[in-house]
Amino acid sequence: MRIRVLGFGMGPQHVTPEVAEALRGTDYVLAPWKSGQDGLLAVRRAICERYGVELVAVPDPPRDRDDPADYPAAVASWHDARAAAYERVLARRRGTAGFLVWGDPSLYDSTIRVVGRLADRLEAAWDVLPGISAPHLLAARHRIVLHEVGRPVHMTTARRLREAVEGGQDNIVVLLGGGPDLPGLADWRIWWGANLGAPGEELVRGRVGDVMAELAAARARARAAAGWVMDVQLLRRAR
Amino acid sequence: MRIRVLGFGMGPQHVTPEVAEALRGTDYVLAPWKSGQDGLLAVRRAICERYGVELVAVPDPPRDRDDPADYPAAVASWHDARAAAYERVLARRRGTAGFLVWGDPSLYDSTIRVVGRLADRLEAAWDVLPGISAPHLLAARHRIVLHEVGRPVHMTTARRLREAVEGGQDNIVVLLGGGPDLPGLADWRIWWGANLGAPGEELVRGRVGDVMAELAAARARARAAAGWVMDVQLLRRAR
Repeated sequence: MRIRVLGFGMGPQHVTPEVAEALRGTDYVLAPWKSGQDGLLAVRRAICERYGVELVAVPDPPRDRDDPADYPAAVASWHDARAAAYERVLARRRGTAGFLVWGDPSLYDSTIRVVGRLADRLEAAWDVLPGISAPHLLAARHRIVLHEVGRPVHMTTARRLREAVEGGQDNIVVLLGGGPDLPGLADWRIWWGANLGAPGEELVRGRVGDVMAELAAARARARAAAGWVMDVQLLRRAR
Repeated sequence: MRIRVLGFGMGPQHVTPEVAEALRGTDYVLAPWKSGQDGLLAVRRAICERYGVELVAVPDPPRDRDDPADYPAAVASWHDARAAAYERVLARRRGTAGFLVWGDPSLYDSTIRVVGRLADRLEAAWDVLPGISAPHLLAARHRIVLHEVGRPVHMTTARRLREAVEGGQDNIVVLLGGGPDLPGLADWRIWWGANLGAPGEELVRGRVGDVMAELAAARARARAAAGWVMDVQLLRRAR
């Protein structure tokens, strides 16, 4: 038995030859399915159809989003429930299973952690193939490098943005939602994108204080076009 | 006239469908050529041959690597010389030109900055397509996520590793060479790779203090196999 974790970037346009080859050798692809997010499932379905693989949609367990005090524990418990749902399918079907991961599996995605545990329990071999990640597509769309010459780029979540700013970071990629609506960021520069590579893609750049209204409008348009919105942004402190 | 900056990841296995389509519509690809680095040129040549595009090898200007006091200025001057060499070819041939960028163009690569200036001077349209980056391939090979749940990942250069450690970063991707041979890192964990996706790929992981000899040997093997070595590593402070 074998499980393959396959990054597919932002859609069929980013499926690398090695992922395409892996898909052709895969018996079925497991995909999380959340009510109201058919758009996300549709992208995976399109890829599976292109490479002739069966898609098995697995209903996603509910997740407590009410900012629990112990965030890592809440995530771990949600991973457990998700893993149990996948395990039932894998244990029954065996063979070679694939997981199609949006963006790259190594950045703010739980599939590697979930599959690692499942592979242990099922005594399955498993591997990971990388994908185009949202920060790289954001940079490509804005035609920028993610950092100044020879300097660092700090990647974090919207939840931890304040911590990064207060810690002195001056060049920050923010993932997992949220806008730059923190006090003190008005003079920073922002390069922002939503639904990159997907229906309703939106881009905004400029001085944070100047583009807040434009950004809110673009975010609303992205959500209206796709039914969901995923945003990513680079924030850079003014010199 | 049009210039396209095309990320190709670590080789033909990472050329995305959108980059493949771009290559098919490109009249020629400009590639830096450095004496003694024929291996790097060979990868670009193989991609061009696969998609039927002419490769124009442009000799790379020499670069002062002796740690000049003003590093950004030295890089800028080297970019100028490189840009002048490219400009001569572009001004003569015009049409649609491509640049194939190792990894992703938004991470520690000068092509976007060089092409941006050239496009201004030549009044050319230009765009960027993303590629698989070395940190994502490193993570895939080690089957890890680049950060702990919901926590940041700090990306920087070997040159600035000390600064990041002293600044309290505890989860650091290090690019542009160098090893973890800093005092005080012996108890950190390392996930290291060299020549990822290329001949002589090497992987090492473990406690830094335990794997230094193994790492040096692996690095020497990678250099012997390919004639060059490019390494990338994730360093994580012990809890």
